[in-house]
Amino acid sequence: MYDIAIIGGGPAGVSAAINAKILNKSYIWLSSRPTSKKVERAELIKNYPGLPNVTGEQLAWALMHHTESMGIGLTEEVVTGVYETGGKFTLLVGDKDYDAKTVILCLGVEAAKPVEGEEEFLGRGISYCATCDGMLYKGKRIAVVCTDKRFEHEIEYLCSIAGTCYVFPLYRGYEIRAENAKTVLKSPQKYEGDARLKRVIYKGGSLDVDGVFILKSAISPATLVHGLHVADGHIAVDRGCATNIAGIFAAGDCTGRPYQYVKAVGEGNVAVHSAVEYMANAE
Amino acid sequence: MYDIAIIGGGPAGVSAAINAKILNKSYIWLSSRPTSKKVERAELIKNYPGLPNVTGEQLAWALMHHTESMGIGLTEEVVTGVYETGGKFTLLVGDKDYDAKTVILCLGVEAAKPVEGEEEFLGRGISYCATCDGMLYKGKRIAVVCTDKRFEHEIEYLCSIAGTCYVFPLYRGYEIRAENAKTVLKSPQKYEGDARLKRVIYKGGSLDVDGVFILKSAISPATLVHGLHVADGHIAVDRGCATNIAGIFAAGDCTGRPYQYVKAVGEGNVAVHSAVEYMANAE
Repeated sequence: MYDIAIIGGGPAGVSAAINAKILNKSYIWLSSRPTSKKVERAELIKNYPGLPNVTGEQLAWALMHHTESMGIGLTEEVVTGVYETGGKFTLLVGDKDYDAKTVILCLGVEAAKPVEGEEEFLGRGISYCATCDGMLYKGKRIAVVCTDKRFEHEIEYLCSIAGTCYVFPLYRGYEIRAENAKTVLKSPQKYEGDARLKRVIYKGGSLDVDGVFILKSAISPATLVHGLHVADGHIAVDRGCATNIAGIFAAGDCTGRPYQYVKAVGEGNVAVHSAVEYMANAE
Repeated sequence: MYDIAIIGGGPAGVSAAINAKILNKSYIWLSSRPTSKKVERAELIKNYPGLPNVTGEQLAWALMHHTESMGIGLTEEVVTGVYETGGKFTLLVGDKDYDAKTVILCLGVEAAKPVEGEEEFLGRGISYCATCDGMLYKGKRIAVVCTDKRFEHEIEYLCSIAGTCYVFPLYRGYEIRAENAKTVLKSPQKYEGDARLKRVIYKGGSLDVDGVFILKSAISPATLVHGLHVADGHIAVDRGCATNIAGIFAAGDCTGRPYQYVKAVGEGNVAVHSAVEYMANAE
């Protein structure tokens, strides 16, 4: 039985694994991929303190190098379910299972059904993060696909940078006053291009753009962990990253916005400290 | 008026400044020192993801280099008070003040516990600001309690105004040559008086004075911001780093454990995003 099972190979998972190792806890670190696809594909990251202007690839390398230099290994397996069984947690992985005293969920935000071309051009003209990549499109023509009114301030931010901003508001009560915002009351159906994204296709038309920002909320991880409290698409946690299930913690994008690498690594650290405290109190 | 005032030069402040800049907000970043003394003195940091095995000096350099590379400047001044005035916040700095729509407190935990009577007589004989209140004590008997050699020029200034100046140097390498300075090599234990401060008590004696100047870089959060909710010695914040005062946020060690650099930078990021959202909703 492990002290801590960490699920997810993104920045929150990396940070959790590093801290579990430093705190001398036995752990298993599981992920479907060795590093986060989202990190690798980020064009340029300006707000990871200490690593100015790194590409996603560079940050992913730095994180992987950090864990490797400490002898921390990741088990590349997909967890299909987490069940509480007699004071411990059982993680189902294919036809195997692992037991752990505590679980740290670093699940990221699963992209809702991607539109055709969305995954293909992610990092090559398509971005999920206004803060990260907005400045790359200064004075350019962009489209912003937004699924929720809560992200309107990010649309405003992008409009303040871009030359022309085609906004696809996929929600009600749209209110953007930026002069360079042009509303398109359609859903994108396809993203096209060659080496990079070139255009957005929607029913009845298409638009040539330099980039597309897709601002969408997360999908519930409640299917993975039965009974997990999910609010507004994110795992509900307290300041110590504890979920509603004693012994299960969560960190990173899955706990909510801002979807930022530095927030994720911070929470990975907090979650491990909380898990260690939880085990100390349980003994 | 600035959008965001950031107080504190440690990792949380660095992260907040980087994010304020990226999000195109106007900001002022204030700190008594250009970097955190605590970071510089850390021996080895193993859990800052992406920078394995850095010394404190190396991390401090990496953070400073990051802000410098983005043209982010720190204003090296001590904030002695934050006041809410008509929907904005006013920060007192010496005899100047700065206005901001939001404030992010990144105060660390070095703030020494105030001595008994210190908060009671603040503004009634006790002052944190030589420049602001020095002239009130022309020819009078004052005490100056100083925690850092960097403030010695303020002691000299006060000696040039006061009649008698009792100096309590709480640091090494004390050098004051003013003729009216009388050194007391003790720590003040209590401040006494009635409507106004009357005397300083220290181990083995007491001194009757008209005023006391306490020159320190870290002022306790509740003293700095009147009405701020502090629990267990930490600023109480929610998941978005919001304090009990709308428009004031906090990040880093001052919000509680774990006292870790990576947790601090994560919160600096979160606090700025929350401040931006707050301003968007306030408009």
